[in-house]
Amino acid sequence: MSEAETLSPALPTVLEKKVRMLLEKACEADLTLATAESCTGGLLASLLTDVPGVAHAFERGFVTYTDEAKAEMLGVPLDVIKDKGAVSKEVAIAMAEGAMRHSSADIALSITGYADAGDEPGLVHFACARRNAPTHHREEHFGAGGRGATRIESLRVAVEMMLERL
Amino acid sequence: MSEAETLSPALPTVLEKKVRMLLEKACEADLTLATAESCTGGLLASLLTDVPGVAHAFERGFVTYTDEAKAEMLGVPLDVIKDKGAVSKEVAIAMAEGAMRHSSADIALSITGYADAGDEPGLVHFACARRNAPTHHREEHFGAGGRGATRIESLRVAVEMMLERL
Repeated sequence: MSEAETLSPALPTVLEKKVRMLLEKACEADLTLATAESCTGGLLASLLTDVPGVAHAFERGFVTYTDEAKAEMLGVPLDVIKDKGAVSKEVAIAMAEGAMRHSSADIALSITGYADAGDEPGLVHFACARRNAPTHHREEHFGAGGRGATRIESLRVAVEMMLERL
Repeated sequence: MSEAETLSPALPTVLEKKVRMLLEKACEADLTLATAESCTGGLLASLLTDVPGVAHAFERGFVTYTDEAKAEMLGVPLDVIKDKGAVSKEVAIAMAEGAMRHSSADIALSITGYADAGDEPGLVHFACARRNAPTHHREEHFGAGGRGATRIESLRVAVEMMLERL
């Protein structure tokens, strides 16, 4: 059975299997997904649309690479970004909840972190919002393994967090 | 010199070189880029944020997988989508110009196509908007090579179109 068609050479096999499981479960439950990404820059959205037959579980994605994009596309308050930093629990939660408000998806996952620079390379905050339920937060310290490793590890955590909400 | 750190195993070498060239030229010219993607589902945005040191040329990305997302995030009129089809010259142009209106980027690139299903698998429309200049359009028929091949070919055309506007 085909997995992630475009990204497969760049992904660990276990992640491909989990993505298919996530998308199949979402389709079965008739639930849709949205993403709000900073350091992964659209990689999670591209993964969720890469598996033939189940990509319609994906509703829309926000690639909010700049502070202005986080504020304008998701309604993250600029003073929260300034006070807490773009890579923070507060901004991750505001991004995920903003993606819920600005989409019709049932579950929204946000990622904001330092891919390979910043105060602590490999520090990534995640939040997963679900309608009429509390938003979950996770903080990971992947270490200074570089942009590629941090982004792939971030996909793994993001898929796990969404699976937990299905 | 490092190229696309996460996506490298999935990309042809020539595309990696072109992406770095695009991002370096954009940084030198102090121009920023935005994306509006349907069939590529965020893959172009993830590519433009995957090269260390030059990713700040990317401003924001819209992953508008559904008709509603195209209308709500980019202002593409729903009657145009209904009349012309989501995979059409008119929608590609409206997506690129919508991405300009809804960002501060200098150049916006849109992609809408049939990845591996639809009326003609491999048919993809592209548009590239630049502030105070006419929007360019391109139509490609990549054939029924599957989702992965269509998406990679789409990246190649998208990067070429943006390079032409720098």
